[in-house]
Amino acid sequence: MSEIRRDYVKNKWVSISSNLALKPKDFPTMKIGTSSAPAGFCPFCEGNETATPPEILAYRKEQGEPNSTGWLVRTIPNKFSAFELIGELEEKHNGLYRFYNGLGKHEVIIETPQHDTGFHELDLERLEMIVATFKLRYNDLAQDERIKYIQIYKNRGLFAGASLGHSHSQIIGFPLMPGENDGLPQYYQDKGRCLICDILQQEQNSKERIVYEGEYFVALCPYASRYPYETWIVPKRHTEHFGQLTEAEEKELAWFCKKLSMAIVHALDNPSYNFMINTAPVNSLYEPGYHWYMEFTPRLLVTTGVEVATGVYINPTAPEIAAPILRESWSLLRY
Amino acid sequence: MSEIRRDYVKNKWVSISSNLALKPKDFPTMKIGTSSAPAGFCPFCEGNETATPPEILAYRKEQGEPNSTGWLVRTIPNKFSAFELIGELEEKHNGLYRFYNGLGKHEVIIETPQHDTGFHELDLERLEMIVATFKLRYNDLAQDERIKYIQIYKNRGLFAGASLGHSHSQIIGFPLMPGENDGLPQYYQDKGRCLICDILQQEQNSKERIVYEGEYFVALCPYASRYPYETWIVPKRHTEHFGQLTEAEEKELAWFCKKLSMAIVHALDNPSYNFMINTAPVNSLYEPGYHWYMEFTPRLLVTTGVEVATGVYINPTAPEIAAPILRESWSLLRY
Repeated sequence: MSEIRRDYVKNKWVSISSNLALKPKDFPTMKIGTSSAPAGFCPFCEGNETATPPEILAYRKEQGEPNSTGWLVRTIPNKFSAFELIGELEEKHNGLYRFYNGLGKHEVIIETPQHDTGFHELDLERLEMIVATFKLRYNDLAQDERIKYIQIYKNRGLFAGASLGHSHSQIIGFPLMPGENDGLPQYYQDKGRCLICDILQQEQNSKERIVYEGEYFVALCPYASRYPYETWIVPKRHTEHFGQLTEAEEKELAWFCKKLSMAIVHALDNPSYNFMINTAPVNSLYEPGYHWYMEFTPRLLVTTGVEVATGVYINPTAPEIAAPILRESWSLLRY
Repeated sequence: MSEIRRDYVKNKWVSISSNLALKPKDFPTMKIGTSSAPAGFCPFCEGNETATPPEILAYRKEQGEPNSTGWLVRTIPNKFSAFELIGELEEKHNGLYRFYNGLGKHEVIIETPQHDTGFHELDLERLEMIVATFKLRYNDLAQDERIKYIQIYKNRGLFAGASLGHSHSQIIGFPLMPGENDGLPQYYQDKGRCLICDILQQEQNSKERIVYEGEYFVALCPYASRYPYETWIVPKRHTEHFGQLTEAEEKELAWFCKKLSMAIVHALDNPSYNFMINTAPVNSLYEPGYHWYMEFTPRLLVTTGVEVATGVYINPTAPEIAAPILRESWSLLRY
């Protein structure tokens, strides 16, 4: 089983996967001079259901047996998970070091049975199924008291860390709070208001960094964007948990995902990108100030030593430059 | 001029380079399906000195005019610097947002006049010049009271964020503390001891994660390694600032850089990598607990959405696996 180790220098957690223990030869794609993952057998393709662990959930065209063909969106456990949901979280020590057992859950959502269809090419009905899957899996994982934080994310392309080309996203249930969004409850404690609601209000007034405003969501390039063309989809309603999404919001979020992923792929010439859904902790002491949001990060540059060492991102494209470019692309691409 | 903006959600700083304002077409190398930076004219090659800003410092074979050929190691201002050392640091506000002017200094150390010689292929004498250059530039930048933190780093290869193939490293003088090593003074405040000294002692006792122990330095794979095969070079003497390096330490550090970079390139099949020198803040209120160290991070995997969103790195190679592999490579490669 893996370990979750504390980095005392940077005050962060690191998951060390002792079950993988990759040796030098096991990193085939990141060598200088090679550019893409090797082609070949894809365990996510329709017909290869037995190559994956048994499915957790699937949307199907018609009634059908689990793990058979005919699915549209399929959720499976991550075969190479760093986490296992067995037993309880235990704090352990090794001299001055502190670590936890790798308690948690790691799942994969296969977004289409077709190998070569990109997320931005899926139709709206499929994107609604994907968003519905995110919500179902989020709310199901949140039932387990051992899980304290749920991260939904997608890696698309080599420079976003995708190891398989077949379109998929992932969900991890962590046994502790990573602490990366601690600024939200802190701001609430200082000001008595929600930071994301305050940001939304200022952005709606200035419009400078807004890509699109819908009925329930706003797409905007955040003021302190770490990545060039970073874009957030923010619910206008103050909602702490992603799992609190209403049905009407689900539909609009799916459409925002369609429009924004199309805009990114077209405006930025088919880049690698991630998306991530950041939300409030679950099964934890209540702290006000969280407000879930989704961020899309095109990976047009590789993080350099200065970002690795200092955490200060050097972004060569101001969000005031990025927003009008994405806004134009969003409006030109009809859907 | 650029701006240093506060990210209130993640409690981080972001540098937004308004002087670059890169548009989609300006990111040529990170498209899916392309693998390396375009070849062509290299401003760092000998003979092309006029293509760079005037040099700050150079080691030469013989006496020679600045900005002429015949140099061995050459330090120049970064032509695409996000920072300018003009005026004073000013806190500004834009509604609820906070930012600073992009005060600071960004320099490039060209490590060899030869385009195709890798850092690990340079001879020891050259590496000593490079380490001496780091120290000279560190101590010179530290003279300017406006500079609060100095980061020395290297990007080697596409997956480490290098935009030019010609071997070089960089140094940035920041006008504020990034805060990424805040764990060091915190540990001192809690325990009354230096964390790095405590780590060294435990590692020297167990030997499990030690790659090599010299007279002045220890190379080790840190307990909470974020990157597979991450290795630190730690001075045994409790030294807060990199600039406090003695002449004997300089020589041994150059040799450690030679051996470790050779071991990484050979054991890991020529990967991209960064190195970074993490040190105490300068021109700031004194806080005990800092201890400078150098970290090498091979970039065998690309950071995925989960790392971007949570800051929790998922590392598939435990340092207990990595250290013996690098130890063997270090001992087999004679130098």
